[in-house]
Amino acid sequence: MKDIKRNLTMLCDFYELTMGNGYFRCGMKDKILYFDVFYRNNPDNGGFAIVAGLEQVIEYIKDLKFDEDDIEFLRSKNVFCEEFLDYLRGFKFTGDIYAVPEGTVVFPGEPLMTVRANAVEAQFIETYVLMMMNHQSLIATKAARITRAAKGRAISEFGSRRAQGADAAILGARAAYIGGCGSTACTITDEVYGVPATGTMAHSWVQMFDDEYTAFKTYCELYPNNATLLIDTYNALESGLVNAIRAFKEVLQPLGIKKCGVRLDSGDVTYLTKKIRQRLDEEGLDECRIIVSNSLDEYVIRELIRQGAEVDAFGVGERLITSKTDPVFGGVYKLCAVEDKDGNIIPKIKISENVGKITTPHFKKVYRLRSKDTGKAEADLICVYDEVIDDTKPLEIFDPEHTWKRKVLENFTATELLVPIFKNGEQVYELPTLEEIRSHCKKEIEGIWDEVRRFNNPHNYYVDLSQKLWNIKAEMLKLSGHRN
Amino acid sequence: MKDIKRNLTMLCDFYELTMGNGYFRCGMKDKILYFDVFYRNNPDNGGFAIVAGLEQVIEYIKDLKFDEDDIEFLRSKNVFCEEFLDYLRGFKFTGDIYAVPEGTVVFPGEPLMTVRANAVEAQFIETYVLMMMNHQSLIATKAARITRAAKGRAISEFGSRRAQGADAAILGARAAYIGGCGSTACTITDEVYGVPATGTMAHSWVQMFDDEYTAFKTYCELYPNNATLLIDTYNALESGLVNAIRAFKEVLQPLGIKKCGVRLDSGDVTYLTKKIRQRLDEEGLDECRIIVSNSLDEYVIRELIRQGAEVDAFGVGERLITSKTDPVFGGVYKLCAVEDKDGNIIPKIKISENVGKITTPHFKKVYRLRSKDTGKAEADLICVYDEVIDDTKPLEIFDPEHTWKRKVLENFTATELLVPIFKNGEQVYELPTLEEIRSHCKKEIEGIWDEVRRFNNPHNYYVDLSQKLWNIKAEMLKLSGHRN
Repeated sequence: MKDIKRNLTMLCDFYELTMGNGYFRCGMKDKILYFDVFYRNNPDNGGFAIVAGLEQVIEYIKDLKFDEDDIEFLRSKNVFCEEFLDYLRGFKFTGDIYAVPEGTVVFPGEPLMTVRANAVEAQFIETYVLMMMNHQSLIATKAARITRAAKGRAISEFGSRRAQGADAAILGARAAYIGGCGSTACTITDEVYGVPATGTMAHSWVQMFDDEYTAFKTYCELYPNNATLLIDTYNALESGLVNAIRAFKEVLQPLGIKKCGVRLDSGDVTYLTKKIRQRLDEEGLDECRIIVSNSLDEYVIRELIRQGAEVDAFGVGERLITSKTDPVFGGVYKLCAVEDKDGNIIPKIKISENVGKITTPHFKKVYRLRSKDTGKAEADLICVYDEVIDDTKPLEIFDPEHTWKRKVLENFTATELLVPIFKNGEQVYELPTLEEIRSHCKKEIEGIWDEVRRFNNPHNYYVDLSQKLWNIKAEMLKLSGHRN
Repeated sequence: MKDIKRNLTMLCDFYELTMGNGYFRCGMKDKILYFDVFYRNNPDNGGFAIVAGLEQVIEYIKDLKFDEDDIEFLRSKNVFCEEFLDYLRGFKFTGDIYAVPEGTVVFPGEPLMTVRANAVEAQFIETYVLMMMNHQSLIATKAARITRAAKGRAISEFGSRRAQGADAAILGARAAYIGGCGSTACTITDEVYGVPATGTMAHSWVQMFDDEYTAFKTYCELYPNNATLLIDTYNALESGLVNAIRAFKEVLQPLGIKKCGVRLDSGDVTYLTKKIRQRLDEEGLDECRIIVSNSLDEYVIRELIRQGAEVDAFGVGERLITSKTDPVFGGVYKLCAVEDKDGNIIPKIKISENVGKITTPHFKKVYRLRSKDTGKAEADLICVYDEVIDDTKPLEIFDPEHTWKRKVLENFTATELLVPIFKNGEQVYELPTLEEIRSHCKKEIEGIWDEVRRFNNPHNYYVDLSQKLWNIKAEMLKLSGHRN
């Protein structure tokens, strides 16, 4: 198995280190902290997100190590004490991590991960953990939207050349596969992660030959079982399609091969694909697939299908690999509790004049409540870590903002979303395969209501607080209430 | 010097390999091709872009290598012939590359790079070259916009946690520095590339202490020369500012330290910073800087300054590191010429029903024409490779679309933009330092007219074709003209 990992311990915001040095110097380094990773808004104003990136976070945590070059570099900044630098030499993660498995449907405001560790360790991992989860969750969520828009037609991820750097290409293709894409153009993502790599041809192939027909004929001879021809180098209908049909008939038909394809990368897709489908069918090439690319996303694909475009598969590039319409997944990493000397867990809150930036305090767990009748998720309930939901009894849940809005759930199951990943620095979580993550994601999306899956104006899925947690938060808010 | 490079030869679109195998099998592998890298639209509808990423392209080209794992993986795909796989074992780049140096102002339609190599090599490098140049040019261009909006105030790049993967964070911070940012939060970008890493504190620092004052006082004691305090954990004016002023006076003043800072990460920036500035000045803390972060970009910064917000420096995160308002730099890699058996260069064109997708054929060079009176760039002129512009004589240039629009330049200099990078696979270009690239970029931006630098509706800078090149293109278009 190809290994392209490298040690990125130093990929941290500089303030993680200055704060760590500060905790170290004022005797707070062994204080136990709890941090939550959560996000505030679904990308593209959707109804949910798909969480991804955990596998790479686990690799990072296990691989944490400052080498002598790093120590020397940090010393040169003239802000770190020698005792701290020496401590970094043996630095590793010794805490606990709980996380929602990759491919799970998640909602704003609930913890996707909780880190319990000493002050230096817990603070240190912030940047990388967020970066990895934000990036892959963003792309998995976008891929799920695009896949749904395509209504069963295959989606191939084509975006490496427009990705924001190598990891955006490589891990973006991994995340896109989790979210529902069927393949990628990115060869290394196949080699490293097993996402099937596929490809057709570039315009340059066609231009290399004296004429388009020779280019197509040669390609069919070379790859008779995989002959997808790009027909828009000169003129899609008058030239490309005519030459493609001729090549299929002259090269593939004598071999008894019926599966083939044409790809269109420009022009009026609906108009052209209808014409193309008609001519292919007239020629008996009804197993010839039409593949379309060129600045597609879920909105364009939905519109093309609505217009009756004859498309069998979509190649989606830049608008998927960058999540162009909303390229930021805004996960944050916020302190939610600390332990006192006796091990008591003291909840912490961050107030903000932007009400949306106020955090939910305490060490928490999250239950997903699903109806036994429909199998669909009805609500998520965030509880204090020591609460247990008994799903054999009716449960009253309420809107944490508008507390008079209440609902009693009956005949439901309550499943915890966060599972243990690390205990005392040891990995206790068995990594699922990428195929398992992808299947899990598919089931997860099937497990939420259509109304939550809507692209525009989806129903607001309930993410509620238990009465106990709500009371703690309300009390803390009251104590620190100010108005400017 | 820290080395975080890894071999990413396999980061290629799979079709580069199937096409390579095809060229190899049909005896075309030694055919010499010319490809141009160019882009079609400036990000954010700006008037220009900043090109970046060349240094990493050079590293990639020099490092190309398929190892046995790669060969084994490719064999398992059952599409490559053994002779081709054997050829890949010794694969390296043996061609020529010309490119525009990093930090240069560039415009749509002109070559940023030209690759001359045999068919397999020239085709193979497409994906990585585009990915690297697209990403870094995107971020350098965005950083230049944000820097201009800040009108001399410092910009620190803060975005690692929202970057699209590790390279987006690391090289994004490099590109942001080229474009004008003064520092980054990303530690590893300082270690590897020398971009100064800086940082303040997170809200968690404040929450860790029993009260905000103790948190601030402790920080000032630890870092008296670098005390920037985050004042919005609870309430910026009523709590944070009051405690910060007290800590500055009690800890820094006795040490004779006047330089300090407060950071605001939420709330109504204009209102709050005016109040903060007033109170700081009243307390004699006129050397205390006000630093603002929270979802900033060039539009928000320009508006804050217009409103009179009292800000000394901006921390810019997600909207810079992802270029949120326009996260794709659409560089393409297009065949522009081939050599025949006798070494004659035969121009190639790609026609498209989308007129904007038609390419400019031939092996080309680009001159930047600058007025000697003003020093400002007046136009870029794309010529055939063997043309020479004599800048001692008047030169008539014309609009390639509307050819009756003509202009005679006099008293100008003509400088070639593309410089040799590789010759026969050997690097012939001496890499500038990052500081040199950054200074070059600053001068480049000063060297274009204000009207081209405008954020909205900038003047369209002239990118013209020489008469000779225009004639060749027009003839080729005529020969292949169709209308659907």
